Amino acid sequence: MSRKRLQHGDQNGPPTVRTVAALAGVSIASASRVLNGLGASAETERKVREAAASVGYVPNAVARSLQARRTDMLALAVEDIGNPVYVAMMRAIEEVAARAGYRLQVHATGADPAGEVELIDGLARRYVDGLVISPIRVTAAHLTALARVPTPVVVVGSLPDDAPTGARPVDNVRADSHTGVALAVAHLVAGGRRRIAFVNGPLDTVPGAARHAGYLAALAANGLIADPALIETGDFHHAAGREATRRLLDRERPDAILCANDLIAVGALHALLAAGKRVPEDVALVGMDDTDLAEMSFPQLSSVSLGSAERGRIAAELLLRRLAEPTRPAQRVTVAPELKIRASSAHAIAAVPAPRIGETP
Amino acid sequence: MSRKRLQHGDQNGPPTVRTVAALAGVSIASASRVLNGLGASAETERKVREAAASVGYVPNAVARSLQARRTDMLALAVEDIGNPVYVAMMRAIEEVAARAGYRLQVHATGADPAGEVELIDGLARRYVDGLVISPIRVTAAHLTALARVPTPVVVVGSLPDDAPTGARPVDNVRADSHTGVALAVAHLVAGGRRRIAFVNGPLDTVPGAARHAGYLAALAANGLIADPALIETGDFHHAAGREATRRLLDRERPDAILCANDLIAVGALHALLAAGKRVPEDVALVGMDDTDLAEMSFPQLSSVSLGSAERGRIAAELLLRRLAEPTRPAQRVTVAPELKIRASSAHAIAAVPAPRIGETP
Repeated sequence: MSRKRLQHGDQNGPPTVRTVAALAGVSIASASRVLNGLGASAETERKVREAAASVGYVPNAVARSLQARRTDMLALAVEDIGNPVYVAMMRAIEEVAARAGYRLQVHATGADPAGEVELIDGLARRYVDGLVISPIRVTAAHLTALARVPTPVVVVGSLPDDAPTGARPVDNVRADSHTGVALAVAHLVAGGRRRIAFVNGPLDTVPGAARHAGYLAALAANGLIADPALIETGDFHHAAGREATRRLLDRERPDAILCANDLIAVGALHALLAAGKRVPEDVALVGMDDTDLAEMSFPQLSSVSLGSAERGRIAAELLLRRLAEPTRPAQRVTVAPELKIRASSAHAIAAVPAPRIGETP
Repeated sequence: MSRKRLQHGDQNGPPTVRTVAALAGVSIASASRVLNGLGASAETERKVREAAASVGYVPNAVARSLQARRTDMLALAVEDIGNPVYVAMMRAIEEVAARAGYRLQVHATGADPAGEVELIDGLARRYVDGLVISPIRVTAAHLTALARVPTPVVVVGSLPDDAPTGARPVDNVRADSHTGVALAVAHLVAGGRRRIAFVNGPLDTVPGAARHAGYLAALAANGLIADPALIETGDFHHAAGREATRRLLDRERPDAILCANDLIAVGALHALLAAGKRVPEDVALVGMDDTDLAEMSFPQLSSVSLGSAERGRIAAELLLRRLAEPTRPAQRVTVAPELKIRASSAHAIAAVPAPRIGETP
């Protein structure tokens, strides 16, 4: 084995993907694809695997890291690892990464832009091979850091069209909140609702801003006038959604509420039921993100799927492809939204018996 | 800098913790504690930091990994990263790890014992410095793997008292399900409930077996006879909880339901409300784990906290301490449970107005 290594290895040590590629008679990119578990033609796959075996290419984490400065690790940075939308994304990324032989490192950023920028800059120390990051606010500092980072990064979320491009193209996976909100509003209008309130997260976040703009555009498209009194903002968590909905109900009598995510919608449902409103008869309710919470609620929540698992899967695949082909032009993928209609906004009266919660017997 | 390194470094390269300890005049364990961010006396801390600076001890991930075979990474392996009980644990571990300069790698095992054993055995390749694992089933293969692993592992969950001890002591953090179930049953009995059903997860899991035994013991302690017809099992997820509760309600008229976790309880709440039962008037409901779901439900769920965040925090701290003191005797810590009483089992009739879900106006 050690003779073979000396024969085929690079000058300074054990065999690298370069050695394997040369011996297999394929490009480095092809060899890398096979060794990264990304698939190739059966013939290429066979040649690369045989070459790797013959030179003793070691799939051992420490040895590979030592020889190729590879860590076999990808990182995921999201605001809050407890938010079910990120849980779905994380599960999808973990699955793609594991299949390709990568382990996943998870960072909770707490939506702190400075921390996110530090994380991106820190990639220069090569503690992971690549990063998927989903910042809920994109600052100028993010764009500067992305332009100078030497390690592949995929951004889940919107990047400005005029973002500076750096040495390494940054791939981008987007949700389409605008269309998603339009689907929800059209559905509520079709069900006869006219006073459609909107409970949003902070307007200075990427999703908050996009969903606000989508709501205004969707009302206009349906011939409805936007009433500022029907708009509430809090943050993207359930307690804030409950408080915001209480404020809304103290002031207005909406016949529908659209919430900017399911956590807010769960809070809104709480506030509605506690105020004695029937859902959906008095107030129809629609969330966004279509997380597990939507199915777990009673009544089950209608929700706009923005494809969080799908976005995670695509982001991980783009990252693996970027590792294999570092100079490929930047790709931008937008995942189409889909409205999942459940009991909380069903047009017909729900067929379930009528429970009376909290009534005196 | 390079002269200093040669002066103080080990024979084959840059300075290690050994070099730093010798120069600071402290034990390797003390130097390691300081460099791991675990704290020490102010004087020791100062000496170690000065020594580290003077020999150019590099806190760079790749360099440190190369020189000391350290990865600055801890791993967490749980069944399902989407289960809120593990989310709370993961957040707590991430916080402790980050404070000590470690990053966290997360594995979803899907409760596959073979995969978990492979993960433990894989630690020999040193891709992380230590592992926290929470197997929901502990097999003989787990115990064998734990006895031979060269890397520190902390097990969250019960290990048999007669588990073989290996070269390296395995620390263990436990919940006390038995007492937790007793708290819930005593609370329900105090509220006048007598037909207390139990919806459990699989009996061949550590939590399933412990909670089942706890339920039988708690009934006996309260002078109640266990009725097998009041016991249902499914798995630990909400859809199974809903189905199991439907089967239970088709057959029996319980006046309370205890669920083996909050996911099951959320499913049970769904089944109860869909069947027209009032919660808590007709059927009081108590979950376990006290996750975010308990607060998000309507009515809010009473739940037995088994200290998931606390167990995560302690597990991470034990792992860091084990890294600093590899031969310290194995520690076992049990976290005490606490019952959080909310509307779903409140003795008094809830004071909220009476919403009528799904009724014809």
